[in-house]
Amino acid sequence: MKKVATAQKPSSTVNGVAVDELFSTIHAVKSMPSIAKFRFRVRNQWLTGSRNCSDIATFTGADQELAHPRPFRLEADEPAILLGKDLAANPVEYLLHALASCLTTSMVYHASARGIEIKQVESSFEGDLDLHGFLDLNPLVRKGYRSIRAHFQINANVPDDQLQEIVELGAGHSPVFDSLTNGVPVRVTAERG
Amino acid sequence: MKKVATAQKPSSTVNGVAVDELFSTIHAVKSMPSIAKFRFRVRNQWLTGSRNCSDIATFTGADQELAHPRPFRLEADEPAILLGKDLAANPVEYLLHALASCLTTSMVYHASARGIEIKQVESSFEGDLDLHGFLDLNPLVRKGYRSIRAHFQINANVPDDQLQEIVELGAGHSPVFDSLTNGVPVRVTAERG
Repeated sequence: MKKVATAQKPSSTVNGVAVDELFSTIHAVKSMPSIAKFRFRVRNQWLTGSRNCSDIATFTGADQELAHPRPFRLEADEPAILLGKDLAANPVEYLLHALASCLTTSMVYHASARGIEIKQVESSFEGDLDLHGFLDLNPLVRKGYRSIRAHFQINANVPDDQLQEIVELGAGHSPVFDSLTNGVPVRVTAERG
Repeated sequence: MKKVATAQKPSSTVNGVAVDELFSTIHAVKSMPSIAKFRFRVRNQWLTGSRNCSDIATFTGADQELAHPRPFRLEADEPAILLGKDLAANPVEYLLHALASCLTTSMVYHASARGIEIKQVESSFEGDLDLHGFLDLNPLVRKGYRSIRAHFQINANVPDDQLQEIVELGAGHSPVFDSLTNGVPVRVTAERG
């Protein structure tokens, strides 16, 4: 990871990130490595056709079983052209949101830790899919995204040539970016419900 | 892909999936391959700290620029232990939802095309992350998920030993499963906003 020049000395909160707590977390993990292990979960329920929803209630972290203050429900559907009712974003759009939100948060956290003040961030993501894969019409065409492009517009107190370094702070630390670009082993099992 | 035994002859709608339209789509793609190309998009805006949101409005498919009937807004945050306000699911939870919803829909579509009646599907997903990666504390620890496990409970008109084949219909066709297990190239660029 290239070092990005520090634009100002970190104060306790930078860009809405409590950097003092971030540094405390780093020190805590150094003295007790097990608290760095997290396990996230969702529980999904099929409704009908292309519609299903996930409930997100609890997770494990810092050697504790933790709960969100209220559970989050995420719905999924498909547009009409993909045989759905278009009542919610579809799974591959959720994947782009996961990537966009993770790159943004990772960039903001790591820039904040370096004292770089960020005023505004917007980004556009697009991914290309070919249904020849999903529909089993061509074994050479993959089922998933062939490629994804992300473009950030950033207003920050850094010279122009450091804008790319700031987004690389995101790409270099983002758990979703790493998961998606390098792949994750996924084990799928079933039983009668 | 192993062939799953057909439990009943496909009617026009199976499990809420218009299988006649699904077969029409397959025939249409065979005669005009370009309609199989899809491009999905999200536009993300950083709010502060760990909070950002994505707007999902349009996509390209079937040689057309298409719009959802209304745009979908997805928020993201982090729990307090990860320095957020816990107002929304976090990016790695969205990634699990993308995977869960895509495996479910892919399974239901391909089972429906084979005339397999499904009564109920529920699934649990969990993924393991170690913050030593994100926090730059150990270069041997990856930033992303180390592994993900998915477990399905399925009520369907098939013998027990075919339940695993049904979930493999999902895993064998799901665009998010393929993207996440095999990886996708992601290009990230920046300009001053």
